Amino acid sequence: MAHSSGRMPRYCTGVARQPMTADEVQRLHQQLSNWGRWGPEDQLGALNFITAEVTAAAASRVLSGRTVSCARPLPTQPGPDNPMPVVHHMTGTATEGYGADYFAVAPHGYSTSHIDALCHIFHEGLIYNGYGAETVTAHGAGKLGIHHLRSGIITRGVLVDVPSIRGVEALEPGEPIFPEDLEAAERATGVTVQTGDALLVRTGRWRWRETHGPWVPSEGMSGLDASCLAWLFEREVAVLGSDGVSDVMPSPVDTVPMPIHTVAIVAMGIHLLDNLDFDELSAACTTAGRWSFLLAVAPLVLNQGTASPVNPIAVL
Amino acid sequence: MAHSSGRMPRYCTGVARQPMTADEVQRLHQQLSNWGRWGPEDQLGALNFITAEVTAAAASRVLSGRTVSCARPLPTQPGPDNPMPVVHHMTGTATEGYGADYFAVAPHGYSTSHIDALCHIFHEGLIYNGYGAETVTAHGAGKLGIHHLRSGIITRGVLVDVPSIRGVEALEPGEPIFPEDLEAAERATGVTVQTGDALLVRTGRWRWRETHGPWVPSEGMSGLDASCLAWLFEREVAVLGSDGVSDVMPSPVDTVPMPIHTVAIVAMGIHLLDNLDFDELSAACTTAGRWSFLLAVAPLVLNQGTASPVNPIAVL
Amino acid sequence: MAHSSGRMPRYCTGVARQPMTADEVQRLHQQLSNWGRWGPEDQLGALNFITAEVTAAAASRVLSGRTVSCARPLPTQPGPDNPMPVVHHMTGTATEGYGADYFAVAPHGYSTSHIDALCHIFHEGLIYNGYGAETVTAHGAGKLGIHHLRSGIITRGVLVDVPSIRGVEALEPGEPIFPEDLEAAERATGVTVQTGDALLVRTGRWRWRETHGPWVPSEGMSGLDASCLAWLFEREVAVLGSDGVSDVMPSPVDTVPMPIHTVAIVAMGIHLLDNLDFDELSAACTTAGRWSFLLAVAPLVLNQGTASPVNPIAVL
Amino acid sequence: MAHSSGRMPRYCTGVARQPMTADEVQRLHQQLSNWGRWGPEDQLGALNFITAEVTAAAASRVLSGRTVSCARPLPTQPGPDNPMPVVHHMTGTATEGYGADYFAVAPHGYSTSHIDALCHIFHEGLIYNGYGAETVTAHGAGKLGIHHLRSGIITRGVLVDVPSIRGVEALEPGEPIFPEDLEAAERATGVTVQTGDALLVRTGRWRWRETHGPWVPSEGMSGLDASCLAWLFEREVAVLGSDGVSDVMPSPVDTVPMPIHTVAIVAMGIHLLDNLDFDELSAACTTAGRWSFLLAVAPLVLNQGTASPVNPIAVL
Repeated sequence: MAHSSGRMPRYCTGVARQPMTADEVQRLHQQLSNWGRWGPEDQLGALNFITAEVTAAAASRVLSGRTVSCARPLPTQPGPDNPMPVVHHMTGTATEGYGADYFAVAPHGYSTSHIDALCHIFHEGLIYNGYGAETVTAHGAGKLGIHHLRSGIITRGVLVDVPSIRGVEALEPGEPIFPEDLEAAERATGVTVQTGDALLVRTGRWRWRETHGPWVPSEGMSGLDASCLAWLFEREVAVLGSDGVSDVMPSPVDTVPMPIHTVAIVAMGIHLLDNLDFDELSAACTTAGRWSFLLAVAPLVLNQGTASPVNPIAVL
Repeated sequence: MAHSSGRMPRYCTGVARQPMTADEVQRLHQQLSNWGRWGPEDQLGALNFITAEVTAAAASRVLSGRTVSCARPLPTQPGPDNPMPVVHHMTGTATEGYGADYFAVAPHGYSTSHIDALCHIFHEGLIYNGYGAETVTAHGAGKLGIHHLRSGIITRGVLVDVPSIRGVEALEPGEPIFPEDLEAAERATGVTVQTGDALLVRTGRWRWRETHGPWVPSEGMSGLDASCLAWLFEREVAVLGSDGVSDVMPSPVDTVPMPIHTVAIVAMGIHLLDNLDFDELSAACTTAGRWSFLLAVAPLVLNQGTASPVNPIAVL
Repeated sequence: MAHSSGRMPRYCTGVARQPMTADEVQRLHQQLSNWGRWGPEDQLGALNFITAEVTAAAASRVLSGRTVSCARPLPTQPGPDNPMPVVHHMTGTATEGYGADYFAVAPHGYSTSHIDALCHIFHEGLIYNGYGAETVTAHGAGKLGIHHLRSGIITRGVLVDVPSIRGVEALEPGEPIFPEDLEAAERATGVTVQTGDALLVRTGRWRWRETHGPWVPSEGMSGLDASCLAWLFEREVAVLGSDGVSDVMPSPVDTVPMPIHTVAIVAMGIHLLDNLDFDELSAACTTAGRWSFLLAVAPLVLNQGTASPVNPIAVL
Repeated sequence: MAHSSGRMPRYCTGVARQPMTADEVQRLHQQLSNWGRWGPEDQLGALNFITAEVTAAAASRVLSGRTVSCARPLPTQPGPDNPMPVVHHMTGTATEGYGADYFAVAPHGYSTSHIDALCHIFHEGLIYNGYGAETVTAHGAGKLGIHHLRSGIITRGVLVDVPSIRGVEALEPGEPIFPEDLEAAERATGVTVQTGDALLVRTGRWRWRETHGPWVPSEGMSGLDASCLAWLFEREVAVLGSDGVSDVMPSPVDTVPMPIHTVAIVAMGIHLLDNLDFDELSAACTTAGRWSFLLAVAPLVLNQGTASPVNPIAVL
């Protein structure tokens, strides 16, 4: 790689930026709150930014019709980044005269491409919109379950390919991404992130993994610095996706392990798409010379669920 | 209901049609074959009809941007139509400080909204495109696995609402649907089914179930008569979906339990969407006064799998 | 059947007994408490009655060496008494060159033969020995998990065959069993229940099910009346098993749905064996003319688990 | 460790023994066959050696009544020796007011303590007693399923502690055990293995793992050399257990990966207990000064299953 940085280099050199403090992140919960914005019974959060008009406009801008998956295969092999592998068994084969199967998945974590429901993360005993965390029991999520997304997410997707912006193959594990990166991408691609967009941030995680092998994600994942939260709020992003988990790990913010997860989900009501794969999409965008597209995300209708594995499809 | 028929009335009265014989269905495997049409290594079958141009054209016709799910919630309750209920357990709750869960699903059968991979059905020891059924082992489907659909299905969907055409609330269990019904729907809606379409046929199953309670599907399901197969072939339908399983049950064709599954999947390479729910979509189409829309189906990337649960999204 | 009674006949006719009140049951939590009896860190409860001497004595009384299972097959079929069927899939077959499989089980409920860990039931926020119920989280049971039974239960088993005592084929759903029945059985068989015994009470549930078909257990199950609790305490029973769930259902005790589960598990620390099958054992005991035997129960070592499916073996 | 050997040292030094050839092992299938010995419909194989008299005699020799588990906890953590970890989820916690859970297990492999059903291993298209391997389909094992063991295995267990015999802490991965070891153990302990015994062979695997960490079992496991097969046959051993998988791995026999599994299961009808843990039992036997005991194995009644996780209990 072109740059010889260690972990979290931008805090030490170059931008010379200090990480946010826990107090600063705590204040974001008020400053960037969407609680009540769409009513006291709202279950959708920032997905409300995706009006029918936004969806229609995104569809109208499809050009080639090329479709690209943003999902990894369901991860059936255990590894340091996959301690709870997907179980997949065949229940019908040549012998029985038909093909049939069964699979079992715990979508959260660092391996399965999935969307987090807003009930996934708590802050001070509350979930998005001020519902009590006690609504989440072993019977299911009484509020903000994934089934509220049954009508799907059909909106404009925008890919920010940070390694391309920085001129590297892949960001290093633990390397943070700043608002300046997002804006550099806007300038480079001519796409301005706007209300209702699905913002997809590529770190090059899977390229790094191909080269260096799997590792324990908590020891280092590239992702957005907490300073991006205000930017996401201002742009009225509806959904945030990453080939990692959007958060930098380990967290630069003392005592706040995952500020993006916490503030984006709980305060802002932004659904996160974790562990996606943008390698093919990045190539397709480069070929097409455009970095926005129609994005279709269709979560399974799991009543009171906290997540769904997904296969987001970009249509260029 | 307006008509006082028993099971399979149209064969006895009205249309006075005879069911196809097993020999006639057998001949369809040659007459309606797409084997080799897209090369000896083809894994996609009739999805090849969905070119990028077809996708782009479908996107361009979105008007309102309203999105509607065609999926049932994942069925966690057992019943006569659901002997293998989906397992759903919470693995994180208020006590643990986060919401998390796990689910397990065997998608085939008569309850889960799913898409069949082309490896699901065998005929005389072969699967679509002439691959041997022996490629389907307990290790997975060596050919025609569901992972080949990773780029998704983004095409025009057309809803044929047969109860509406026939002026009833819902078709009765076991009631067949004929090409005449499909063409009556075309005339009534002004939509002509064409190359690359996803044809969605509503029987009103779930309306019937609300009124009459659950029943054993093999004892009676409304669906397409085998005489529709040639029609599907001629129109170059890419995907076929139903709120049942597309087949009439019990089968009117002696010794061929599911002629639609067998000929459409094995000979024609048409993926089937089973156990969808078009009740909301039917209402939305009625309101919009249009019966075609953009349809987004995004199967999970389950390597060598035989199916995926799906949540197809219609965008009007 | 010989008697033409309705539900819970013994409260209305014959014995003319009044059900216990909720207050009376509440007092049993103090009167019959074993909390602290085996130390503040005890995890075994009444299993402490099974000393090595008790085990050795039970082994010494084996006569014929005939072994009899007390388990039902793992219930893979759903039904009114089995809403969460066991999942069983083959993962290796003739095609792969070996036989292999996978199963998934939620042992509690009314169908799987299982042993309850002492962490299964709470009373006023506490579990046996006064541990807080909050030790039971989605991470597992921090106290009283089933893994504490890893050394197994090898003790004397005593079968009380209530239908035989009462001269009927099977008790009716909802029919209570009283201390008088237990003592009548002692007189009839010459076996006196004593310290460390596994008391197995047959109601004839499965015989009834064969004749009448499956039903919803909460609507009627035969089991022990709450008046048996003091008797169990005095006799220092170590384990209590039933072909039902030991409790009469619906509960005759107002506001206390399962007094046997609650008092026996929480106060007395008695492990319960639910949904066993004593039909074969009853026949074997009749043939042998003896109603006590060596009983071997070997729970799986599931760390912090709340139960284990079991196959208790009686050795006559 | 006391000896400085590499892999499979006994073949190169000391005993100067040559491994068996594939032809020799092939001949064992005839020489050591129990097919037909207990009738053409036999489903139990060498368990037929455990007559009621054998069971009664084993019970009569219990002395102290101390019980010891031979099972590992169900392995929920993935690792090089556990690619398909047991899934364990809580379904009821403090919040719901009761403790409940769910687990899923694929018992075969190198981690879960389990018993192999006789349908597990095939040889030339056949399973024990000459049944066709084609009886093992995705619907289950039509012959020799684990449910045939519903009456349990209650017999004399004999522990052969090979590291103790050889004066080492643990055998090295890949180190073979010979008949001479078994006989040396007999001389050292005064126990002669006889008809109907459960022979338990300790290699010290878990002690080695504590010291060296987990490894990929196929790269090296201590176990019985194929030359032990005739010895097992002559002694009429009913069950064979190990803290490994009884086979040496990699196999010294060219082209026969697991001769013990193949000949013992298919030809001799001996059920194997894999991945047990004898560390506590070894200590208990040392303390008691006796190496035989009552062994109770109670497989779950999984209809047409190929294995069961077990917790074998030794009663000294």
